[in-house]
Amino acid sequence: MMRVIPKDKVIFHFNTTNQANYTVADGEVFWVEADDCYSGQITDASVKRPDIDISIMDCAVGPINVEGAHPGDTLCVEVLAIDLADHGIMVTNCGLGVLGDRITEPDTKIIPVHDGFAHFSDTIKIPLTPMIGVMGVAPKSGEIHCAVPDDHGANMDTKLVKVGSRVYFPVGQEGAGLAVGDMHACMGDGELSGTGIEIAGRMCLKVTVYRDRPIERPVIETFDGIYFLASRPTLDESIKVATADVVEFLMKKLNLSFPDAYRLMSATCDAQICEVVDDNVTVRLHCPKFDTRIQTL
Amino acid sequence: MMRVIPKDKVIFHFNTTNQANYTVADGEVFWVEADDCYSGQITDASVKRPDIDISIMDCAVGPINVEGAHPGDTLCVEVLAIDLADHGIMVTNCGLGVLGDRITEPDTKIIPVHDGFAHFSDTIKIPLTPMIGVMGVAPKSGEIHCAVPDDHGANMDTKLVKVGSRVYFPVGQEGAGLAVGDMHACMGDGELSGTGIEIAGRMCLKVTVYRDRPIERPVIETFDGIYFLASRPTLDESIKVATADVVEFLMKKLNLSFPDAYRLMSATCDAQICEVVDDNVTVRLHCPKFDTRIQTL
Repeated sequence: MMRVIPKDKVIFHFNTTNQANYTVADGEVFWVEADDCYSGQITDASVKRPDIDISIMDCAVGPINVEGAHPGDTLCVEVLAIDLADHGIMVTNCGLGVLGDRITEPDTKIIPVHDGFAHFSDTIKIPLTPMIGVMGVAPKSGEIHCAVPDDHGANMDTKLVKVGSRVYFPVGQEGAGLAVGDMHACMGDGELSGTGIEIAGRMCLKVTVYRDRPIERPVIETFDGIYFLASRPTLDESIKVATADVVEFLMKKLNLSFPDAYRLMSATCDAQICEVVDDNVTVRLHCPKFDTRIQTL
Repeated sequence: MMRVIPKDKVIFHFNTTNQANYTVADGEVFWVEADDCYSGQITDASVKRPDIDISIMDCAVGPINVEGAHPGDTLCVEVLAIDLADHGIMVTNCGLGVLGDRITEPDTKIIPVHDGFAHFSDTIKIPLTPMIGVMGVAPKSGEIHCAVPDDHGANMDTKLVKVGSRVYFPVGQEGAGLAVGDMHACMGDGELSGTGIEIAGRMCLKVTVYRDRPIERPVIETFDGIYFLASRPTLDESIKVATADVVEFLMKKLNLSFPDAYRLMSATCDAQICEVVDDNVTVRLHCPKFDTRIQTL
């Protein structure tokens, strides 16, 4: 029977010393249950964002250690399924998101989710785009709150962490220390108001340890490309880091000089925004699979 | 017989006083020929970027006045066809693009273009993504070099200015003063090395004047969405301007309050990068056509 990891054991920080709450085998498929990013505190529309205890927000279920994962390895997390709860939450709050200075009072909206749509209002329904906001591993050093994305992953708020994607992380500690949470029923690139449709649910994951695909930062593979992620304080910095990773990848895979890989990247690869509202902003560089030699990491 | 506007009459600045070199009717379909962004100066790989006269770079063919276009109207330019020359150019130059500090000497690459591909090398071919880098109209005030994108359009370097797209501009002067140029055979979002595959060619355009769709900045419609563009000195500023435009659009079309439109935007619309290498950086906010009321501008 497939293992189900319950939502009650969580971390608030990714660090080097967290002890595993769960252990899975290399290659195992399992379910993980998760609360919404508010840890279930917003029970109805009367509960506003300032009313809740922010010290228990933005946690991640785990750590889930993977047998045989050692520092320097690469952990691949394949998303096989996402089941969503029957409603999601969208708050507004003063100062929250790129136009937060125009919000004058906090407000909470409960959004029913069923039949493939988020029912935003009686007349507006939105096709679901289920995704996982927080997915990360123990970092090589330091301690980072789950709400902050960085080279170990965490709150990357990336639409492509969805069913069918493979998300790769650099293993920083023995067992990797995977933790996940913060599901969204819908979100646009940027997460511009500061939230997606925040929702509880469960996700079915498969973990695989690779020893021959070293990476420094998260990489996502989908059917149509390989995406190199970077999270830094500014968009410019994040773009520069991700661009350098793609150029290095193209140099290695296609045996190119730096100038040729740089040009080829500019002609083919897309700089894309994941989120612009967390403490680090996350971008991805999309490298399409235009050549047989760049089909995988 | 369809009119062909030749490439010899160009502007280097969009301003309020340029006199029309051509006049077309509202609704007319016509071809425009254009040199590459280097005005044809890079004739072979021996000509490096520092060797050319930059004062005649980055021009646009026009101005093309449209009969009946008055200030306050909206000009729609539909791209019906793009024919590319048989080769494109990709230079590298010290300091050019996001990793330009790693370029130690200028270099020019000539890239054959035929049979639907850009032949980057003997073993690497790239599917063509033909697009128009510069498309703009006379601004409401001031004078802006064709290389700089702003609310009047110009060097937006946006992949979606391609066959099948409708590009809308706010008419700032009598006749609109449309000018176009800077075609690319391929380019990734961001134009990260500072150039696409720069190429000469011709484009078939249809112009239509609308009096009931006022806009402040360029908007692009494609089969799958409406894109709101903004060009400002930083990505953060551009995102904020475009986001406010989308929220206003959703408030109007769906009769929503600001907080609800802000949330709906965050759940459905994508912040996307056009280019990050020009004097203003251009972003677009993608509003998908998820509701029957948001099928057009």
